[in-house]
Amino acid sequence: MGTRITDIRAISTAPQAGCNLVVVRVDTNQTGLYGLGCATYTQRHLAVVQAVAYLKELLVGRDATAIEDTWGLSMHNPYWRNGPVLNNAVSGVDMALWDILGKEAGMPVWRLLGGKARKAVPVYRHANGHTIDELEDNVRAYMDKGYRYIRCQLNGYGGSASYLDVPDGPPDGAHCDARAYMRQTIHMFEELRARLGWDVELLHDTHERLSPIESVGLAKALEPFKLFFLEDVLPPEQVDWFARIRQATTTPIAMGELFNNPMEYKRLISERMIDFIRCHISQIGGLTPARKLAAFCEAFGVKTAWHGPGDVSPIGHACNVHLSLNTPNTGILEWCGTDTHEQINEVFSGVPQQKGSYVYANDLPGFGIDMDEEKAKKYPATMEVPRWTQTRLPDGSVVYP
Amino acid sequence: MGTRITDIRAISTAPQAGCNLVVVRVDTNQTGLYGLGCATYTQRHLAVVQAVAYLKELLVGRDATAIEDTWGLSMHNPYWRNGPVLNNAVSGVDMALWDILGKEAGMPVWRLLGGKARKAVPVYRHANGHTIDELEDNVRAYMDKGYRYIRCQLNGYGGSASYLDVPDGPPDGAHCDARAYMRQTIHMFEELRARLGWDVELLHDTHERLSPIESVGLAKALEPFKLFFLEDVLPPEQVDWFARIRQATTTPIAMGELFNNPMEYKRLISERMIDFIRCHISQIGGLTPARKLAAFCEAFGVKTAWHGPGDVSPIGHACNVHLSLNTPNTGILEWCGTDTHEQINEVFSGVPQQKGSYVYANDLPGFGIDMDEEKAKKYPATMEVPRWTQTRLPDGSVVYP
Amino acid sequence: MGTRITDIRAISTAPQAGCNLVVVRVDTNQTGLYGLGCATYTQRHLAVVQAVAYLKELLVGRDATAIEDTWGLSMHNPYWRNGPVLNNAVSGVDMALWDILGKEAGMPVWRLLGGKARKAVPVYRHANGHTIDELEDNVRAYMDKGYRYIRCQLNGYGGSASYLDVPDGPPDGAHCDARAYMRQTIHMFEELRARLGWDVELLHDTHERLSPIESVGLAKALEPFKLFFLEDVLPPEQVDWFARIRQATTTPIAMGELFNNPMEYKRLISERMIDFIRCHISQIGGLTPARKLAAFCEAFGVKTAWHGPGDVSPIGHACNVHLSLNTPNTGILEWCGTDTHEQINEVFSGVPQQKGSYVYANDLPGFGIDMDEEKAKKYPATMEVPRWTQTRLPDGSVVYP
Amino acid sequence: MGTRITDIRAISTAPQAGCNLVVVRVDTNQTGLYGLGCATYTQRHLAVVQAVAYLKELLVGRDATAIEDTWGLSMHNPYWRNGPVLNNAVSGVDMALWDILGKEAGMPVWRLLGGKARKAVPVYRHANGHTIDELEDNVRAYMDKGYRYIRCQLNGYGGSASYLDVPDGPPDGAHCDARAYMRQTIHMFEELRARLGWDVELLHDTHERLSPIESVGLAKALEPFKLFFLEDVLPPEQVDWFARIRQATTTPIAMGELFNNPMEYKRLISERMIDFIRCHISQIGGLTPARKLAAFCEAFGVKTAWHGPGDVSPIGHACNVHLSLNTPNTGILEWCGTDTHEQINEVFSGVPQQKGSYVYANDLPGFGIDMDEEKAKKYPATMEVPRWTQTRLPDGSVVYP
Repeated sequence: MGTRITDIRAISTAPQAGCNLVVVRVDTNQTGLYGLGCATYTQRHLAVVQAVAYLKELLVGRDATAIEDTWGLSMHNPYWRNGPVLNNAVSGVDMALWDILGKEAGMPVWRLLGGKARKAVPVYRHANGHTIDELEDNVRAYMDKGYRYIRCQLNGYGGSASYLDVPDGPPDGAHCDARAYMRQTIHMFEELRARLGWDVELLHDTHERLSPIESVGLAKALEPFKLFFLEDVLPPEQVDWFARIRQATTTPIAMGELFNNPMEYKRLISERMIDFIRCHISQIGGLTPARKLAAFCEAFGVKTAWHGPGDVSPIGHACNVHLSLNTPNTGILEWCGTDTHEQINEVFSGVPQQKGSYVYANDLPGFGIDMDEEKAKKYPATMEVPRWTQTRLPDGSVVYP
Repeated sequence: MGTRITDIRAISTAPQAGCNLVVVRVDTNQTGLYGLGCATYTQRHLAVVQAVAYLKELLVGRDATAIEDTWGLSMHNPYWRNGPVLNNAVSGVDMALWDILGKEAGMPVWRLLGGKARKAVPVYRHANGHTIDELEDNVRAYMDKGYRYIRCQLNGYGGSASYLDVPDGPPDGAHCDARAYMRQTIHMFEELRARLGWDVELLHDTHERLSPIESVGLAKALEPFKLFFLEDVLPPEQVDWFARIRQATTTPIAMGELFNNPMEYKRLISERMIDFIRCHISQIGGLTPARKLAAFCEAFGVKTAWHGPGDVSPIGHACNVHLSLNTPNTGILEWCGTDTHEQINEVFSGVPQQKGSYVYANDLPGFGIDMDEEKAKKYPATMEVPRWTQTRLPDGSVVYP
Repeated sequence: MGTRITDIRAISTAPQAGCNLVVVRVDTNQTGLYGLGCATYTQRHLAVVQAVAYLKELLVGRDATAIEDTWGLSMHNPYWRNGPVLNNAVSGVDMALWDILGKEAGMPVWRLLGGKARKAVPVYRHANGHTIDELEDNVRAYMDKGYRYIRCQLNGYGGSASYLDVPDGPPDGAHCDARAYMRQTIHMFEELRARLGWDVELLHDTHERLSPIESVGLAKALEPFKLFFLEDVLPPEQVDWFARIRQATTTPIAMGELFNNPMEYKRLISERMIDFIRCHISQIGGLTPARKLAAFCEAFGVKTAWHGPGDVSPIGHACNVHLSLNTPNTGILEWCGTDTHEQINEVFSGVPQQKGSYVYANDLPGFGIDMDEEKAKKYPATMEVPRWTQTRLPDGSVVYP
Repeated sequence: MGTRITDIRAISTAPQAGCNLVVVRVDTNQTGLYGLGCATYTQRHLAVVQAVAYLKELLVGRDATAIEDTWGLSMHNPYWRNGPVLNNAVSGVDMALWDILGKEAGMPVWRLLGGKARKAVPVYRHANGHTIDELEDNVRAYMDKGYRYIRCQLNGYGGSASYLDVPDGPPDGAHCDARAYMRQTIHMFEELRARLGWDVELLHDTHERLSPIESVGLAKALEPFKLFFLEDVLPPEQVDWFARIRQATTTPIAMGELFNNPMEYKRLISERMIDFIRCHISQIGGLTPARKLAAFCEAFGVKTAWHGPGDVSPIGHACNVHLSLNTPNTGILEWCGTDTHEQINEVFSGVPQQKGSYVYANDLPGFGIDMDEEKAKKYPATMEVPRWTQTRLPDGSVVYP
């Protein structure tokens, strides 16, 4: 009667403080055959855990290898769809089924997808600094380790917060002065190029701290520094402003970690408004939609640069790497050094490994990642609301986004 | 120090079997001052309950009258946004804050919004039948009660299910034969117009059972019957096909109960691709975004026809009615007879009342609805996955959507 | 029977010489309950007074809290609509009804709208000079008072008038040499940035003194000086030229104090041709349409920067501030120091107050402004036609506009 | 020193009850040389009278033959512009100056414009009926008088008002049931074509009683009856919907009596969205802008059909006729039988005369119209607000427009 789903459950753990990981485990009627998938939505992890419980109701007893059918059923069953909580739950199951399929075939997922189109996946790292000197040091440290692509920020997203000027004091939350941040960023790249030269690829992430026209202006002002790409200059609700950015500048544009809904990105790609799609694979529903999205981008000359922050589980990172190995139009991958994190390696085995400016997958069946649930319990996830997403402008208003 | 939020909690109840309602109660530091909001997402109600718990973490202690600020903070705090689970949670709080503001002001919410632009809100009802004779009887029964707008379906969404033809038997779930359904629907309206004449306004809902080109064809084929509107002919991912529908026919188009994300509807409206926006107010995040959406539609000559099914709590229905009373470009409202449901009236007081083809709000402060939590416990919500959203075509494939 | 309108009358006064203010007072059947609204159209104030008399005929006896219905009735009753005289009359009544609603609710209007989305509203001031030295002094004087946003002009709108060269002498009126003005303006900003640095935000207003292609050229030439915005570069009849400006430059664009008609601005916003909408709220018909316009702009990533010149009454300024406090997409507000004008404070109480670079509303019910009609009589309005709107080019032709 | 303006004044009179006419008289320093212009805005005539007073302040002493310069100065002096009150005032002066110029030249205005491009101007008349029988009689009566173009309405604008169904009774004002009116109108033309045949040109005016999609549907449904044109199917704020009408049907479209602002009509014409421009000449500022508009339409293959209702003075009608005689792309003119109205002929002399389906101008200098001010005083204008512009839908909401 084939391989059937016998159980589905979500496991939360936070081996890296502040990053609530959610892993979905799908068990089958075949002895020892199970799969793991990433359903990590750190900021609302318990809602995802609850959404996974509904998928258990829906899916137990079904064919574990009917991945496409399961995905469609899972997406449409809740009627409303394409949101972050539900997509992560679907992703957890979807990746787990791919993991199971690989294990049944005795093959890594990248081989099931059609094999490696490249030896390894180029990655970029994050460098930050409170001063340009400190930032320069951090960039050079990465360069010394062989990295060629480095994202550079001064004082985190949106720059320094020391400018608040509402006379009766600032409201709580993080803060940003968009205009000062723009000037600082242009100055930062003037300095970095003067100090570092041109043999390193630099990137920058505005993390949606600017108004649309400020984004247009910054993208144009940064053109002389020849960024590898400029990231997330617009919130998802305002992506039609990319038409203005394209008129103004040739700075390469990356966008998409915040996307959940195809209506947010389809037209951006088909009208060639961006150069790199940066979706968070679990946020769009897993490997099944992500490989279609990669193919869609290939049709329009757009490259992939999947989201790879700290709040992705090693299964999620492995999925990023497996897909990027197979996709001809892979551009790059974000990488945060998960392979060197002690507690993560305690809980998970098989984490993709970095060498030079590249990351490598292992050759084990499925995604090649396993998890020690007992160890995971040592690092319980905690429910708290993030402060950095409460950013306000100098007048006290919430930054939209 | 003004009115502060002291507690937020989600209450589930199902006085109408199969409709898990979620109501959010926001308490304040003012004696006896609290608000109720609708956060009903029947198919995933427990995920919403969990999402509300995060909002409690975020919002307790804040100004209960800073509705706009609270909305922005609530939307952006989870970083990813615009999905059904999170939007419902935000809606629950948002409507509750409007309810509180109305109570503080001693005014119904419709007065806070700028008063009534009409005496009452025109509504439409659902008539169904297994045969055209039965359907005709049901339509006439509504007409006898004074209703002028009636949605007509044969055998529910997508028509009869007696046609499954996969040789080895159908998979589980509901079923639909799109081509047969199209023919039945055209025949149905031929019969209805012949029997009922033209002094009643007829509507129809394809509920996204057709492929895009089938939708274009049906919309055109129904033009002679002069529907008041044709509803939900395309899934949210395919709304760009409305350009083809507009080329083909003048049949009025309503769309939107499945929308969660502004990128799904902004362009549809600004390019005048639809005539009625039918969003489910709690699914887009509450009254705060809904009244902006109504104003947005007004600018483009599009009317509102907010979603009003059984799985909306009386607070949600009241919000529909209050906003529709105030909005100049109100078209119509969906109505399912909540005012005559015995168990609902046992749990809730102040439900909007139908007279003739209209629904009326009461004049109590806020939304004018109260809830008896003890009575609500008599009708516990239950977690089960819906079967009607598992619809498959004759070959066994999941209908997308 | 609720609150009814019992009288409507327009009051003219000019506490600031040259600024004929028109305030509309709406009385009700509730003892002591009345509202004030701004209907100021200085250049044709008596025509507005007459238009208000028609609204009295139309509206006395109606529900004072049915604001939306009253607005629609008032706009459509004269058949032709969307012009400055009629819109101001409608605005006077509209704001007065919001003032009444706030008083009935015991709340400031900003609370009725959904509360404050920011602590205070950032503003910009006007600095002018006959020489760059004088201008620099004036800018520094504002900076010393805490202002961060300053609009800079040399010799008023369109620059110096010393260049008239028609052999038989200039006609009467003001004068402008567009080409010389362009060169002076570029030089002015070179000097200002060299002298003032970059920690102050500079703005400029061409006040429609240029031909379309001159505007395109100036907007591009000013890009290196990173204006906060460039204002009113095109007359309302020529706004389709913004497409050319957008192609040429990323200079942020503000536009709109001259708009009266939605057809002048809807497409500008929906096609993202401008960055700040600067309508004069009474000129578009009051708070009711202005808050819808703010929501419309929010959908397209455009910010508000409502017109706030000397010829706005304190009620109009309060309306600007209340709406800007509530609107998430507030950019900035024009401010002319009304709070420090002795005669204005003699006639009006409750004027919004400036601190640092921000303006604050008070917490009184309604707009929080009252008027002493006896004091107002000390400063009678006078009927005279303005000279500055008779500007001519060197050949003697009227500047269009 | 040439011909100078010595006085400007507005004269109100209502020889036809309910139509407040406003005539502007401009006197000069030449003995017996004066001009008359039409500034009729019946619904707000006193505001126009006041606006004319400002123009007197601006213009006395200036060259009476500098028509273009005066027009530009008059339009821009009040800063805000393009509204109905101010445009009528400008029109009154503008037509009067053309009248003066004709008298100085000893020529009718049509000769100054370049002479007659046709012998006479084709016109259409209005037929109405409470029943189709009555309407048929009225149409045949016009046909018997030689008219070939007849506008047909049942029960006035928007059809019968006998359908109000809000349970607690309708609000005051006129009423319209848009859906019933659509069905009645289609039926009306079926009957008229069956009874009258095809040798008469039929027109219809929806007078903006329908929603945009209803207008699209009606325009298409009327295509088989081959109207000469269908008029005013959209309000000025929604004219972008003409793109949908053009997709749906070849019914000829006329639009424009409500226009005041070039932004309302320029794009409609340049994108060929309409076939006949129907502006009210005094509402757009007089003959000076109207003849430019005629030339603009000629460039795009659009014809003129100037607004010619009862509330236009004989000077305004004469202006319509003179311009239509000269314009090559004249389509038709609206005509209401002013030449046969006893009281109008008592007050005015020289009214254009109808013969068959045409109207003729006289050959006197200027517009060829004179006015007896003493007789005019017998018919004083009265200030009252119209009821027909307060039309409401069955739910009690104001029809927009």
